[in-house]
Amino acid sequence: MTIQTVDLIIHAKWIIPVVPKNTVLTDCSLVINDNRIIAIKPTNNIEQLFSAITEHDLKEHVVMPGLINAHGHAAMNLLRGYADDLALDTWLNDHIWPAEAKHVSAEFVKQGAELATAEMIRSGTTTFSDMYFFPEETAAAAHSSGMRCQITFPIFDFPCAWGNGPDDYISKGLTLRDDYRNHERINVIFGPHAPYTVGDDTFVRLSSLAPEIQSGIQVHLHETKGEVEAAVKESGKRPIQRLYDLQVLTPTTQCVHMTQINDDDIAILQQTGAHIIHCPESNLKLASGFCPVDKLLKAGINVALGTDGAASNNNLDMFGEMHTAALLGKAVAEDAAALSAQQVIEMATINGAIAMGIESDTGSLEVGKCADIIAIKLDDIEHAPLHDVLSHVAYTHNGHRISHSWVNGQLLMQERQLTTVNTKEIASNAKEWQERLAQN
Amino acid sequence: MTIQTVDLIIHAKWIIPVVPKNTVLTDCSLVINDNRIIAIKPTNNIEQLFSAITEHDLKEHVVMPGLINAHGHAAMNLLRGYADDLALDTWLNDHIWPAEAKHVSAEFVKQGAELATAEMIRSGTTTFSDMYFFPEETAAAAHSSGMRCQITFPIFDFPCAWGNGPDDYISKGLTLRDDYRNHERINVIFGPHAPYTVGDDTFVRLSSLAPEIQSGIQVHLHETKGEVEAAVKESGKRPIQRLYDLQVLTPTTQCVHMTQINDDDIAILQQTGAHIIHCPESNLKLASGFCPVDKLLKAGINVALGTDGAASNNNLDMFGEMHTAALLGKAVAEDAAALSAQQVIEMATINGAIAMGIESDTGSLEVGKCADIIAIKLDDIEHAPLHDVLSHVAYTHNGHRISHSWVNGQLLMQERQLTTVNTKEIASNAKEWQERLAQN
Repeated sequence: MTIQTVDLIIHAKWIIPVVPKNTVLTDCSLVINDNRIIAIKPTNNIEQLFSAITEHDLKEHVVMPGLINAHGHAAMNLLRGYADDLALDTWLNDHIWPAEAKHVSAEFVKQGAELATAEMIRSGTTTFSDMYFFPEETAAAAHSSGMRCQITFPIFDFPCAWGNGPDDYISKGLTLRDDYRNHERINVIFGPHAPYTVGDDTFVRLSSLAPEIQSGIQVHLHETKGEVEAAVKESGKRPIQRLYDLQVLTPTTQCVHMTQINDDDIAILQQTGAHIIHCPESNLKLASGFCPVDKLLKAGINVALGTDGAASNNNLDMFGEMHTAALLGKAVAEDAAALSAQQVIEMATINGAIAMGIESDTGSLEVGKCADIIAIKLDDIEHAPLHDVLSHVAYTHNGHRISHSWVNGQLLMQERQLTTVNTKEIASNAKEWQERLAQN
Repeated sequence: MTIQTVDLIIHAKWIIPVVPKNTVLTDCSLVINDNRIIAIKPTNNIEQLFSAITEHDLKEHVVMPGLINAHGHAAMNLLRGYADDLALDTWLNDHIWPAEAKHVSAEFVKQGAELATAEMIRSGTTTFSDMYFFPEETAAAAHSSGMRCQITFPIFDFPCAWGNGPDDYISKGLTLRDDYRNHERINVIFGPHAPYTVGDDTFVRLSSLAPEIQSGIQVHLHETKGEVEAAVKESGKRPIQRLYDLQVLTPTTQCVHMTQINDDDIAILQQTGAHIIHCPESNLKLASGFCPVDKLLKAGINVALGTDGAASNNNLDMFGEMHTAALLGKAVAEDAAALSAQQVIEMATINGAIAMGIESDTGSLEVGKCADIIAIKLDDIEHAPLHDVLSHVAYTHNGHRISHSWVNGQLLMQERQLTTVNTKEIASNAKEWQERLAQN
């Protein structure tokens, strides 16, 4: 019998592959070569088959796919706790937008995104989607951190620090897309901000451009009741209907928030195959409304999960987000059996990958997929007793117990030590921004 | 100038006293003697006034009152993750109650409560309220852990492993109350389980007995819509109206849950001065409903916070509970300015003390109060930048960053090491219960 030499073997007490559903493997090993998973086998047989350059023995750990934060604004980490407990319009008009207008620059985005990548890796996220000014800086931070990333470059009908209007944003964004064309981990797509900040002309342009270059689109949609009511008053149409009529909604469109959903909206989502990115903590904190997730999942719509920016959350911990999504989803559905542990884990992994069109690379631990893997150490008092590993991951755990993280086979964190990110420098930069913002 | 020798001085970067409101003291020290706070002064003057036997220099920490978990079932920690994602009646009838009937004993309660005290101290809780079978075991666990505790001994109209009916429960409970009459940290009060498990005769008895012996009462009330509807159908009265008519509601009554509240209910709460214990994560997980906390606070009703048991949460982290309470409270009120960071911190501290009638001893850091104090280390990437300490405590933080805990001046945790609790033995006991429960 030949023994194959491979790059990496991870021996785990438990493995949650996510696919197939409701599965917890015990005492198994993940075998990784050339950045991809090539086998998942019982640990007691593994040395007869494989020999590894590097091995990790994680005997008190559950190993699972890295989490996918499908919507956020990484650089806004610098505005964490900057303005809380305010009505949405006061928050935006009197605090967030003035602070952004004064401070947002390439440097702000670079250092904010670096802070966010450190926090995300430490809490088990391996892939994130980002929509913010100076997206080239966030892309660079993702590149150097080793994380997987979907950059959705922002498009508005008005100028901002990053550009002077839709033509300029699209031109800059497509250049960025070109720069990352062959990147293994980074994908650049269109990020028209929202129906109320982007006009029909721009949406029409995107609806022909996106399929032409096989790009996805991510858009804020139906975040609040006010947004929907204003649109109906002005045009007679709900925003989702308008985007449908403009042919923006396809199986590569990601609709973020959707707290306001009626049966017509569901029919549109079903017909077009567009995805929903649910951001429960942000929706609650901004009092935006309640996305009916259970109803959407039962209607066959793909729902992924995101934290939104740290200014409206105020952390990027996807485990906390899963917990909130599960609890809130049950209460909104008035059914304690709705949104099971498995379902919210799917929302935070495979559903995000499907929404971004990267499910052949990530989102589950399956042979052939890239090695995007995290380990959680389950030896604390808070995890005792351990009746059900899936339940602990969804309901009991917080991201701070993540011990290891790999993306594309590269080790990004070992025993909570980050390998690609300089936390000392990041913390020092954040402190400087704290002082600059305080002078406002 | 005389320098006074005292037991303990804690120097802190920041102090959140909770009272007065919206206050963060910087570079101040807490001076403790004979278990009580005798001064809070700027650190740079302190050595001219006091000399301490023990000093703690917490220069990266925020120091605040220990949290008060105003409702729970500590021993149910052994059922954490035992049965999730089930409708409430299936959960109770087919899982929780059969498991309790088979397994609950004095030993189960002792070892479950010990597990819970370890988890609570580690996450910043210094006072807890408990309602469960064999309350003498939970009281003993509280005593040996050094925590402050309100034992609400359970009363039902039917027999259970602990006793054979209301007379027996009341007799045993009053004996327990007597045993702890002069205890500095433990108070024993009546815990009639709920309107649907306790009859009028028993409530009438409590309504005269409680004021006679100056005991409080804690009762589950309006947990679900079904409970209220069934009562109205049967008796024509909402449960809170029935308890009002039976004179059970007074300024020493604690009503747990109250997810169903109309204006008449609010009027009763205002008139009687009864308190509400809000358990948002349990209410969400069991799809019980949404307590309108902002409306209650605006109506002048005292609302405290509890985790409920770990079987329906699935942790006892009061920081997570604060975060959920704040976020959910905003969404339910449809107002992002509702339930501020300060307000949820009050709910988790002083409001709990007021509900339990122990606000002269605990719930805030004020001169004259007992030294029930926790410290949180704020040096992680997740706390950067630090625009607002109150915001970080309410929205960003989780209990795992608590570094120190004191109750009644006694150090219960130092640099995350527990001083009164044997975590190794507790973990081993939990493992044994895991195996016994799995055989079910």
